[in-house]
Amino acid sequence: MKCRVCREPAVIDIRRHNANFCSEHFLRLCRDQVAKAIKDFDMVQPGDRLLVAVSGGKDSLAVWDILRELGYEADGLYIGLGIGGYSDESGRMTKAFAEQRGWPLQVIDLREDFDYDVPTAAKVTKRVPCSACGLSKRHLFDQAAVDGGYDAVVTGHNLDDEAAVLFGNTLRWQTEYLARQLPVLPARNGFPRKVKPLVRLGEREMAAYCVLRGIDYIVEECPMAAGNKHLGYKDALNTIEAQSPGSKQAFYFGFLDRAVARFADGASDGSDDSGLGTCRSCGSPSSGEICAFCVLVERSAGAQPVVLTVKGSS
Amino acid sequence: MKCRVCREPAVIDIRRHNANFCSEHFLRLCRDQVAKAIKDFDMVQPGDRLLVAVSGGKDSLAVWDILRELGYEADGLYIGLGIGGYSDESGRMTKAFAEQRGWPLQVIDLREDFDYDVPTAAKVTKRVPCSACGLSKRHLFDQAAVDGGYDAVVTGHNLDDEAAVLFGNTLRWQTEYLARQLPVLPARNGFPRKVKPLVRLGEREMAAYCVLRGIDYIVEECPMAAGNKHLGYKDALNTIEAQSPGSKQAFYFGFLDRAVARFADGASDGSDDSGLGTCRSCGSPSSGEICAFCVLVERSAGAQPVVLTVKGSS
Repeated sequence: MKCRVCREPAVIDIRRHNANFCSEHFLRLCRDQVAKAIKDFDMVQPGDRLLVAVSGGKDSLAVWDILRELGYEADGLYIGLGIGGYSDESGRMTKAFAEQRGWPLQVIDLREDFDYDVPTAAKVTKRVPCSACGLSKRHLFDQAAVDGGYDAVVTGHNLDDEAAVLFGNTLRWQTEYLARQLPVLPARNGFPRKVKPLVRLGEREMAAYCVLRGIDYIVEECPMAAGNKHLGYKDALNTIEAQSPGSKQAFYFGFLDRAVARFADGASDGSDDSGLGTCRSCGSPSSGEICAFCVLVERSAGAQPVVLTVKGSS
Repeated sequence: MKCRVCREPAVIDIRRHNANFCSEHFLRLCRDQVAKAIKDFDMVQPGDRLLVAVSGGKDSLAVWDILRELGYEADGLYIGLGIGGYSDESGRMTKAFAEQRGWPLQVIDLREDFDYDVPTAAKVTKRVPCSACGLSKRHLFDQAAVDGGYDAVVTGHNLDDEAAVLFGNTLRWQTEYLARQLPVLPARNGFPRKVKPLVRLGEREMAAYCVLRGIDYIVEECPMAAGNKHLGYKDALNTIEAQSPGSKQAFYFGFLDRAVARFADGASDGSDDSGLGTCRSCGSPSSGEICAFCVLVERSAGAQPVVLTVKGSS
């Protein structure tokens, strides 16, 4: 197995590219793929200030690392979700990563700063934890980006993530979600621009990137996500991909090339939400008097906290 | 486990309907679902003469049976594809089924009537057998329907089949195929109307229907289809369906409700093929001077036949 570029011994094969790479040329490939995604989708400009949503997992640490390597001014924001030992460990890793490199990292802790956590919010709202978690993260990343004067929020969604979300949205033909499933969401009405520079790279590549760069990341999946539908969609696509390498890439980029525009009329919360007001409590853009985040905080704060084990199970 | 309708002991559970049925009410459900599909999609009218494409499998024998039960004048057409013991057995079963009931069955044998068979055509054309098989069947069913003055060709495609084809077309965003994936294709330019009355019923239901009606069908899958992508898509959807019953139905009918019209511009061979000529050899509608079927016959006839074992493998 030889590197496609230099013919030296390879350390990784990428079946959908039908190619192998040595460490040096694999890392270059990752940077090139991020640069290409940024250019193809006009994600950000040189000189932009970027806020990276970091979780301590391979994807967010890798995208932060690659953006810095490419010369971008990229700071991190970590949110402590209060998911038992899983959150303790991911917080520890994220802080160590930033400290070692001397990169600015802002930390928000749901329990310390807002008197709730994801398991408690899930219990109070009687919905799946991923719902309260996603809402909290979106709100706090948006707000921090706006308050900090950042040009964009960067997330570490990779090709496997995007293909799985697309599969879920397609299985139910959720036309509003399909209309908005793009690697860039422009800034609008008080919401910051959001970009996904890893859409050309898969999960396995991001794990390899971290290993080869000596990045210590939290390997465990979030214990609250276990068994959710998203992971089922990933499994199904992995089976397809194993049979026909390149299927995920063809699915996601084929959607962007030939389908997403056909759903544009469904993007009801796209450019046409100019009627949004601001949340009376926090000042964020909101369709109601109080935004969904502040409602969640209000309902959860003061509730008896759900205690998780060190493994993150309740 | 009790029948939803009569509370007598049930023989089958249908998870996507969250209901169980006794034999009598399950058979009625199957007929009702076919009647509903015919009505919802305006497939055929009372008094229409229908030509059922029968393979000897559960779906085609069941749809023929149900259409007759519903009072339609439905005749059968069986094509002997020359796939070793698999074809011998399916032909025997189809003929026995029709004979027992005294229903008209027309039989075409590729080897006897056109001097080729599917395995030989696949070898000669160097393409997968399913390609030569599909081309042959489409052509011969179309021609027989037009020659016999039938109002529509009926195929036994069930919900599982249609969902799997849709999944394959969606994975590659094949917009032309998506535009045409409908349960009814109207007659046009010399092609007969084509209808799929089983789209509201799954594979497992059709097997149960045959068992309960005492219909003897060929259980084996076609040996030449083993390992093809279509079966991989079925497996993937079955995994999803097991986790969330109703997923396949939501996928297929959601597509018809909210997506297919968005691909209408891609139907290049839809209503706009008025420029079609006729095949110089057989007189069928054709974009070329000689239609693809006659080209296949010409290339395959006279070639050394591929000999299959009794199991259908080469």
